[in-house]
Amino acid sequence: MTAHPGDTGLLAPGWADSAASSATGDEAYLRALLDAEAALTRAQAAMGLAPVEAATAVTEAAGAGAFDVTSLAERARTGGNPVIPLVADLTEAVGEAYGPYVHRGATSQDIMDTATMLVAARTLDVVLADLGGTERALSRLAAEHRDTAMPGRTLTQHAVPTTFGLKAAGWRSLVLDARDRLRAVRESLPIQLGGAAGTLAAFGAYGASDPAGLPEAYARELGLRAPGLPWHTLRTPVADLAGCLAFTAGALGKLAVDVLTLSRTEIAEVAEGSGGGSSAMPHKSNPVRSTLIASAARRAPQLAATLYGAMAAEDERPAGAWHAEWEPLRDLLRLVGGAARDAAELAEGLRVRPETMREHLDLTHGLIVSERLSAELAPVLGRARAKELLTRLASSGQPLAGAPELADVDLDPAHYTGSAGVLTDRALERR
Amino acid sequence: MTAHPGDTGLLAPGWADSAASSATGDEAYLRALLDAEAALTRAQAAMGLAPVEAATAVTEAAGAGAFDVTSLAERARTGGNPVIPLVADLTEAVGEAYGPYVHRGATSQDIMDTATMLVAARTLDVVLADLGGTERALSRLAAEHRDTAMPGRTLTQHAVPTTFGLKAAGWRSLVLDARDRLRAVRESLPIQLGGAAGTLAAFGAYGASDPAGLPEAYARELGLRAPGLPWHTLRTPVADLAGCLAFTAGALGKLAVDVLTLSRTEIAEVAEGSGGGSSAMPHKSNPVRSTLIASAARRAPQLAATLYGAMAAEDERPAGAWHAEWEPLRDLLRLVGGAARDAAELAEGLRVRPETMREHLDLTHGLIVSERLSAELAPVLGRARAKELLTRLASSGQPLAGAPELADVDLDPAHYTGSAGVLTDRALERR
Amino acid sequence: MTAHPGDTGLLAPGWADSAASSATGDEAYLRALLDAEAALTRAQAAMGLAPVEAATAVTEAAGAGAFDVTSLAERARTGGNPVIPLVADLTEAVGEAYGPYVHRGATSQDIMDTATMLVAARTLDVVLADLGGTERALSRLAAEHRDTAMPGRTLTQHAVPTTFGLKAAGWRSLVLDARDRLRAVRESLPIQLGGAAGTLAAFGAYGASDPAGLPEAYARELGLRAPGLPWHTLRTPVADLAGCLAFTAGALGKLAVDVLTLSRTEIAEVAEGSGGGSSAMPHKSNPVRSTLIASAARRAPQLAATLYGAMAAEDERPAGAWHAEWEPLRDLLRLVGGAARDAAELAEGLRVRPETMREHLDLTHGLIVSERLSAELAPVLGRARAKELLTRLASSGQPLAGAPELADVDLDPAHYTGSAGVLTDRALERR
Amino acid sequence: MTAHPGDTGLLAPGWADSAASSATGDEAYLRALLDAEAALTRAQAAMGLAPVEAATAVTEAAGAGAFDVTSLAERARTGGNPVIPLVADLTEAVGEAYGPYVHRGATSQDIMDTATMLVAARTLDVVLADLGGTERALSRLAAEHRDTAMPGRTLTQHAVPTTFGLKAAGWRSLVLDARDRLRAVRESLPIQLGGAAGTLAAFGAYGASDPAGLPEAYARELGLRAPGLPWHTLRTPVADLAGCLAFTAGALGKLAVDVLTLSRTEIAEVAEGSGGGSSAMPHKSNPVRSTLIASAARRAPQLAATLYGAMAAEDERPAGAWHAEWEPLRDLLRLVGGAARDAAELAEGLRVRPETMREHLDLTHGLIVSERLSAELAPVLGRARAKELLTRLASSGQPLAGAPELADVDLDPAHYTGSAGVLTDRALERR
Repeated sequence: MTAHPGDTGLLAPGWADSAASSATGDEAYLRALLDAEAALTRAQAAMGLAPVEAATAVTEAAGAGAFDVTSLAERARTGGNPVIPLVADLTEAVGEAYGPYVHRGATSQDIMDTATMLVAARTLDVVLADLGGTERALSRLAAEHRDTAMPGRTLTQHAVPTTFGLKAAGWRSLVLDARDRLRAVRESLPIQLGGAAGTLAAFGAYGASDPAGLPEAYARELGLRAPGLPWHTLRTPVADLAGCLAFTAGALGKLAVDVLTLSRTEIAEVAEGSGGGSSAMPHKSNPVRSTLIASAARRAPQLAATLYGAMAAEDERPAGAWHAEWEPLRDLLRLVGGAARDAAELAEGLRVRPETMREHLDLTHGLIVSERLSAELAPVLGRARAKELLTRLASSGQPLAGAPELADVDLDPAHYTGSAGVLTDRALERR
Repeated sequence: MTAHPGDTGLLAPGWADSAASSATGDEAYLRALLDAEAALTRAQAAMGLAPVEAATAVTEAAGAGAFDVTSLAERARTGGNPVIPLVADLTEAVGEAYGPYVHRGATSQDIMDTATMLVAARTLDVVLADLGGTERALSRLAAEHRDTAMPGRTLTQHAVPTTFGLKAAGWRSLVLDARDRLRAVRESLPIQLGGAAGTLAAFGAYGASDPAGLPEAYARELGLRAPGLPWHTLRTPVADLAGCLAFTAGALGKLAVDVLTLSRTEIAEVAEGSGGGSSAMPHKSNPVRSTLIASAARRAPQLAATLYGAMAAEDERPAGAWHAEWEPLRDLLRLVGGAARDAAELAEGLRVRPETMREHLDLTHGLIVSERLSAELAPVLGRARAKELLTRLASSGQPLAGAPELADVDLDPAHYTGSAGVLTDRALERR
Repeated sequence: MTAHPGDTGLLAPGWADSAASSATGDEAYLRALLDAEAALTRAQAAMGLAPVEAATAVTEAAGAGAFDVTSLAERARTGGNPVIPLVADLTEAVGEAYGPYVHRGATSQDIMDTATMLVAARTLDVVLADLGGTERALSRLAAEHRDTAMPGRTLTQHAVPTTFGLKAAGWRSLVLDARDRLRAVRESLPIQLGGAAGTLAAFGAYGASDPAGLPEAYARELGLRAPGLPWHTLRTPVADLAGCLAFTAGALGKLAVDVLTLSRTEIAEVAEGSGGGSSAMPHKSNPVRSTLIASAARRAPQLAATLYGAMAAEDERPAGAWHAEWEPLRDLLRLVGGAARDAAELAEGLRVRPETMREHLDLTHGLIVSERLSAELAPVLGRARAKELLTRLASSGQPLAGAPELADVDLDPAHYTGSAGVLTDRALERR
Repeated sequence: MTAHPGDTGLLAPGWADSAASSATGDEAYLRALLDAEAALTRAQAAMGLAPVEAATAVTEAAGAGAFDVTSLAERARTGGNPVIPLVADLTEAVGEAYGPYVHRGATSQDIMDTATMLVAARTLDVVLADLGGTERALSRLAAEHRDTAMPGRTLTQHAVPTTFGLKAAGWRSLVLDARDRLRAVRESLPIQLGGAAGTLAAFGAYGASDPAGLPEAYARELGLRAPGLPWHTLRTPVADLAGCLAFTAGALGKLAVDVLTLSRTEIAEVAEGSGGGSSAMPHKSNPVRSTLIASAARRAPQLAATLYGAMAAEDERPAGAWHAEWEPLRDLLRLVGGAARDAAELAEGLRVRPETMREHLDLTHGLIVSERLSAELAPVLGRARAKELLTRLASSGQPLAGAPELADVDLDPAHYTGSAGVLTDRALERR
């Protein structure tokens, strides 16, 4: 327990030790900040604004890794962002000859925003991979259980039958929706470059004949997009990240709350592949993966709200709105990254118990098909008498199967799954 | 002051009496609910599941408008949603012959969700129109002030010059980003149709040979999309609305906070076309449009958060998550609708004062171009001496213009706007 | 369906037609605004700043009720708040002689904030009454079921036994916590009076010798507290309301999610007194009260967040932060008012099924007391062997009762409820 | 850049390297978890449930500090919380003889919640100290500038004069409100002790004659309160923390947004003692302390919302709601801790420029006292003519001082500060 040990996720079993955690840690941000600085000098060299040797020197110094993240964090306090001390350290590391080319013409936010986009891009790649695994596992479950009937539940009560295949196909469709939204945002992530007030003026002062061309060169160096305008206070990229990440948390949250419900001791229609133990009770097998995903889904919306709120950023660079983005965006990336990891593991390991589902279809002694009876009896008995009959039977507590009026009706709940199979097939065609 | 007068926006100057208000009121929802019921019977008639006369009868009864919204609101309490009493009233209005075709095979949520999508579609059309007006006005401002220099401000302080044209072009780019996101969501809005648990089973029980084809027929009746799956607990459409509406509020919020800042008595570089008066001070001209937009931007993110949070909806239909969507989604639609109205008015009426902007460029006695001086002096004096000189001059409080070392440097802030003009031109090419 | 029918709760089965709804409607706010204006003139008369006749005239005109809330809502748009047009209408209604005493020396926010506090006070009284009903019903349940054993559930799985009495006592303790917080805030609600910028200067200009004494006189007229300072941008009262209302929503939300869980078809240990019906399925009895409370609990935190965020209000009166409070605070009051109504009904009608609880204690074939076995066997067998034995028995799927090693141990789950009874008794002593 | 370096605040200049940061880091939580475990064994020893030697052994092992926080974070993933692996490590460290007394009878949440309360208590102490410093500095400012007139601003426009003393007194009153709320919550923080399902049953199984007395003994060991009931899913303490921390962030946020406004280049009525520099512009002196506080105020409400939302926690211990609290509560503690540090520094160093304030009072050429003129002219000219005159003068753009009708009126804005002085005095009496 030293003075500055740093946080590694003691309060975050959802994302500790995950690829998303590594991709979003302070060190990963430092790496991205250095990447952003080095690329900027290279872009300037590519446009003839700096000697090639300067680009090489900055890239090498940035890559050498001799930077103290804790010291940077502490020194960030004075100016309010970590780029200021980092530029000082990097300039010193580059040395006298090419030091002046470090960060030349840029403002702190150019580097910070660009680094953030790099971190986001790298983390989204991780998330997309885990969503892929989740989606494939859910495809298998949906196909395998295309015709596994189970109770459909609404407002906590048995309603009519459905199938586990349709349920899994629904989960998968949300995962695909999330994937599509994440991918679109991933492809759109831009570099930031505008200089002090977004006019690129300093690059002109340093000799650029076409400063407005520099953002494209910069984007090429980093594999990001060139934005239409500097976006210091036009926060579309951050808001788009907020939206697709909150969406993904919600999409996985749906899977999680369903698994939590279906895992209950009394229901037990599914179980997590490897449940978590308890510190007190040897028999417990807790749905820990679902729990952690559900926990992420509870937090993500409010983090996204903070980011949407930060769009109202005054002036050319704001006093607070921008700073309010940093940690919530990282938190969102991590939470969703961890949730995607857990979702893949959950989907791949999920144990399904068709026989329990089948038993539960009989729990209401036939009432789960009362809708079908309404539909079939109404033409025969008239709507009013049909309803009266069913209400009487429902309140009698007796199994419907014994009622003489229903002798000719198919009361098997497993035969009343409607278009579940067709819908499942259709949903699985989506790639 | 009668018993049940209803709320018409006394607390909501932002949206009271707006087109978005009409499009989202209780009556508009009632209209949409009736439209959804009538279309459902028509879709069934189109597929041979109901007599054409039933479709006509339901459509006529739904259109006749003899429904009491307050009574519906009160009776909604028992079952927890307004569709249940509405079906009773509509069935009665249709009469004995065709009454049984009302709502046949559907669940309350089919109608409620479909109606909500209709309301959303109608409101987004209004919003898009006002964004169009806003965008055109901002285009004019950006073009007209392409070369109007003004102070660029960062962390509340003068930084380097920018232009009002670039600022207006930035506002416009956010409006276009909002438009693009709203349009995409507008085009994607689906009907809802799944029956009690999303399997479409009841439609089969009522005789449909291809129940899974019914959603397409239903969508055709209403001009909405047919969804891949019933989405009772796959809330992509609602989450997408949340995202694009929160985005729009934020985009307009940026415009608003900038106008608020630039309207301050001490700054006064812009003024709203017709400011609001005060109950106490005859001279006041308040930036009311911006104030109301800013107010909407403060609220929208948290409303969106509630909607994203509602994605974690358990089972086939949830106990609470769905109900939690209704008012926040309406609130978002209204707030953004009102904000778009105000934004159009604000942009169209904005008064710009180039001469005041020009005066402010001199407030720092030349320091606003210190960045340029750094760039130009460094090659001459060396980086260290240049910085030392500028720091000394900055702290002297003397105008830079008198400093002998700067005799040959162009100190005119209006000449240091970098690529602002080019960036503005480029941004205005976007349609 | 007229032009401006107003909203009466079609989307809000949670609060439509409730006392809280009446207490927070546009008409209730109008009433409070008029009360605030009349009291201000009376307070000035009490201090000799206005003729007694003026106080009478304003009070009578304010009480006559000839004000058009929809017209006020529309005219509020120009200046951004409804007080400006209301002052015009009230002044006209009072007539030439005493009209000048209407609103004299005040700013719009004085009246709006004071009216809001009146509305809050009136609504909190309603909420407190319903919490009282809830608390009494829960007391009865807790006492009656002091020794009703049931499964304790953690992370959705049976853990060890608990009692329904302890559960009900826990719900009650949250209700009491909410009551205490609401009461404290209710007692603290202040009038607002500061004039244009919070200095009370206009009252001096109109002749007050001790303007700083006026707030106390004003507070006396309305039965509210006199604040330490004008609080136009010191939003303690609003933040305190946000806190206690979000707390109450959460407290009732706990009750609701427990009832929702325990009502599930498979669990059915409790049932709402009168469940809600379904538009499609005759047998359904939905836990509607819990559903609506749970829905409120999902929304309240984000509404409170908007209010806490509005504390960062710049200047003497802010451009947006204040306006952003109005609707969210009303929404919170309504939501919590509706939830308290539902909670009282829920608690009073709750049906408890001890026999089902007892049956469920055996669902795990004794494993629900594995903790006890660990504790009792460890001293006999040693900790390691005891754990090994239990793990083996747990995974065998056989009832523990048959295991020869456990022959002497009391395996009855109903005998392993620990201090549940004592804790319940102790909790019920709290008043 | 090693494999697991941990985060130390690179993205958090607001709290990096602060006392609140140290008090809330992973290591601080680990310390608190160990304190909680050791105290539990000591409490059992005090009640005769464990040998004194066991208490000593556990306390010593817990204090020795040989625990690897990163390993714990990783192993927490399986069971979903860090207590499970910590108990394993601590038991091993204690050794065979007394290892069985580690965590005996407790559930993970007992320890985690108790540790969280310890961390909260320690952090609130730090926050309260910094609020004390802030309050004292603001007292001095208020007293010193009791009669320093400045423009009162509403909706961004000059309204009527106020004083800087009243403004500072208002800031201080919010700080005191925050202090009072924090203190009350600080004093109420309870230990958690309930065992697996909150019945304390295991302690009985281990031989306690009065298990319900154990919480008091435990509380005594830790200097926390004994709760009325185990609060595993009765989250009053966490909700109360959420409320007082969000309140404090908002209270300091008000100070920050005012300083940001008054620091603007065009206003410059105040300046931070030591502004932050820029990476691009040598002359910039940014209001960094205010910026970081404002940033915290933008985030805190949504973090609090997550915590309020977590009150709806099902069962005896929930699957997600509890886990969703950990990071947001820590974030709130840190953010507010950092903001309080910045506020103290800001208040202590704030530079006030009375002469600039005085100059600004004349910016509107007398209109800032138009309210006074209304009040004074109305009795002389009649209300209508007075208003007409003022409106004419206001729109003329001419200084009011030259208007012949106003020859006898005191137009000095500094003489129209109303009760600002008296209100300031009164506010400063509060301790």
